[in-house]
Amino acid sequence: MIYVSRLEHFNAAHKLYNPKWSEEKNKEVFGPCANTNWHGHNFELIVTVKGKPNPDTGFVIDLKKLSTLIRKHVIEQVDHKNLNMDVPFMAGKLASTENLVMEFWKILEPRIAELSENEAKLHSLKLYETPRNFVEYFGE
Amino acid sequence: MIYVSRLEHFNAAHKLYNPKWSEEKNKEVFGPCANTNWHGHNFELIVTVKGKPNPDTGFVIDLKKLSTLIRKHVIEQVDHKNLNMDVPFMAGKLASTENLVMEFWKILEPRIAELSENEAKLHSLKLYETPRNFVEYFGE
Amino acid sequence: MIYVSRLEHFNAAHKLYNPKWSEEKNKEVFGPCANTNWHGHNFELIVTVKGKPNPDTGFVIDLKKLSTLIRKHVIEQVDHKNLNMDVPFMAGKLASTENLVMEFWKILEPRIAELSENEAKLHSLKLYETPRNFVEYFGE
Amino acid sequence: MIYVSRLEHFNAAHKLYNPKWSEEKNKEVFGPCANTNWHGHNFELIVTVKGKPNPDTGFVIDLKKLSTLIRKHVIEQVDHKNLNMDVPFMAGKLASTENLVMEFWKILEPRIAELSENEAKLHSLKLYETPRNFVEYFGE
Amino acid sequence: MIYVSRLEHFNAAHKLYNPKWSEEKNKEVFGPCANTNWHGHNFELIVTVKGKPNPDTGFVIDLKKLSTLIRKHVIEQVDHKNLNMDVPFMAGKLASTENLVMEFWKILEPRIAELSENEAKLHSLKLYETPRNFVEYFGE
Amino acid sequence: MIYVSRLEHFNAAHKLYNPKWSEEKNKEVFGPCANTNWHGHNFELIVTVKGKPNPDTGFVIDLKKLSTLIRKHVIEQVDHKNLNMDVPFMAGKLASTENLVMEFWKILEPRIAELSENEAKLHSLKLYETPRNFVEYFGE
Repeated sequence: MIYVSRLEHFNAAHKLYNPKWSEEKNKEVFGPCANTNWHGHNFELIVTVKGKPNPDTGFVIDLKKLSTLIRKHVIEQVDHKNLNMDVPFMAGKLASTENLVMEFWKILEPRIAELSENEAKLHSLKLYETPRNFVEYFGE
Repeated sequence: MIYVSRLEHFNAAHKLYNPKWSEEKNKEVFGPCANTNWHGHNFELIVTVKGKPNPDTGFVIDLKKLSTLIRKHVIEQVDHKNLNMDVPFMAGKLASTENLVMEFWKILEPRIAELSENEAKLHSLKLYETPRNFVEYFGE
Repeated sequence: MIYVSRLEHFNAAHKLYNPKWSEEKNKEVFGPCANTNWHGHNFELIVTVKGKPNPDTGFVIDLKKLSTLIRKHVIEQVDHKNLNMDVPFMAGKLASTENLVMEFWKILEPRIAELSENEAKLHSLKLYETPRNFVEYFGE
Repeated sequence: MIYVSRLEHFNAAHKLYNPKWSEEKNKEVFGPCANTNWHGHNFELIVTVKGKPNPDTGFVIDLKKLSTLIRKHVIEQVDHKNLNMDVPFMAGKLASTENLVMEFWKILEPRIAELSENEAKLHSLKLYETPRNFVEYFGE
Repeated sequence: MIYVSRLEHFNAAHKLYNPKWSEEKNKEVFGPCANTNWHGHNFELIVTVKGKPNPDTGFVIDLKKLSTLIRKHVIEQVDHKNLNMDVPFMAGKLASTENLVMEFWKILEPRIAELSENEAKLHSLKLYETPRNFVEYFGE
Repeated sequence: MIYVSRLEHFNAAHKLYNPKWSEEKNKEVFGPCANTNWHGHNFELIVTVKGKPNPDTGFVIDLKKLSTLIRKHVIEQVDHKNLNMDVPFMAGKLASTENLVMEFWKILEPRIAELSENEAKLHSLKLYETPRNFVEYFGE
């Protein structure tokens, strides 16, 4: 079993805001992350796929195809977007990196299984909001 | 003459949008950077001051004080903000890194001259929008 | 289960030196790391907490509060210090990154459990002495 | 159990090319990675060893000795080399990072077991072909 | 005057070899960089353009267009190539970073002048062979 | 004229302390940097040499030889050392990065002139104390 990773990035605006709470409560819990008019980040996403190398290619998965798949199904949905306003799969959800990464999993897991000719599977998603704040998810 | 630098960062939303132009013209010129609901970045700002070291401290300028000054007068104005909507000194200006860095210069140049006990002066500002796109300004 | 990480840094002096050994034996085993008058590093510490996101905040743990906790209980004890001379919890221990990270665990593990409103727990500590030498610890 | 890591790097040429296939099929599968006259990378290799710290040294393993071992048995075989033409242990294999990392494991695993006075063992190898494409292997 | 920069990268093979010299002399001067079957690098190229921001766009130069121009005229010529064998403008020249950067200048300088609607000009090219070895050129 | 750079690093302890001042005054001016028992950093030094490429080698200067020279005359003097206690050329001087870089210049400038067969000269020294605090010196 080998774990193969591809890094992609996107630039997006968001804010952390719970509509069930008052403005004061949001400020108290989220601080400047709740500022009304959004802020943003250069997000980095690492997609890790595990499997056995195909003897004909030496590849667990073709990283060019994996990159194309990630860009088409995730990056294009979020890049240069407002995560609170523009992204259908985040509608009604808090735009935290935790929630983002779980939605990305739902999108990528079946498509990577389908792309793979070799029973390779999505293993983990790592999402950097900044170089100092990041999350990782293994699908459960 | 020694050149002393301090790196600070901030996270902000912006869009590139010229209000004198139609929506179509904005999309044509700025592409996804003109998306209506903003996107954002982890900006990095490098402030470089030049001067002679003070023999008593070995310092051209006290980097702790320089950091405090940059944070108070620049970072607090832009961090977790929308550069188009929330920042008085950007009002009516295109929120490009070029325009940002020139405004930062106007703010920092006199304050650094005042902070310095040693005739040290602001030499340059370097602003990274992403690790691959950045600008530098020397005040003229 | 999501794994949430925060990076903090500190600058410290140390040397590797076993007081039960002769100067020669120390030099033989530790090389320049045993130099009498210490050397130092920009250490980086990544604290990873695992748990389920709170539906009201989208957070496994509030990274601002986690950062404050790490700074108060770990970083303030070691930053701009001599790990061999100034740090009570390292007294009588070899100042290796392995020993440091195990002491950091003892400090952080109960405090993170207490901070969490959501049964999130410390998962791992990763400590970089340099970008090329680092250790990771999972508590057992 | 503590996990201790050392990063080393090497610069090498390679191409991805399956000699059982036609030129066209190679181009179709591997794209520019199959270009006839090779291309190359600054590879980075992270070797992670797990074990208990030796109470006399505070070390799971002596990173200087580990570095010497990696350089002698792996880096010298591949640095400033052509992975398809010059490296005996890659002969007849596709020069993918997946295949490289499995060969590195065969070389390093027994030698690290032998080096260790403390029953420390090779835990994983992580190999970066670029900052955006990398693989990890745990020996099985 | 503002200095705007764009980073691009390419992966290439090369060797350092003077055909007027014996094998021995080449080994003596270039060491492992003269190895017969090439080695390679992940090169990074920073292109810096200077000019005044256009009041309608806030741009010194459109970085998307600059990126497209660099990719078409430089990156496509060298990416996944052998710098000694595949690159017409390096024919008969030693494949050092110094020589590469001077050839890149000849290609980029007139095309950037032509691209610019605003009299912006190429200011410098910085080429990293590794993170530790790099060159910079200002056109004279 | 091409500018060629080489990055080297060293790990050292230091403190900022003016012996003409009281303990209180030192704390007031230097803060935790004046802590009695030192702290330390992973310093990075970038040495930039300018000159014309030698037509026989394509080199402004042989970076292997430049690296050897920097390591022998600078790095060995400061690596794994205490900058206040162990380094003859810093005796009686405040151990600031400003003072360090000026002393490094005095050591490197004549030796690089001597190493060069091609009239290449030291152009600048850039010294990082941390990734966020650094100085640059051009010899005057």
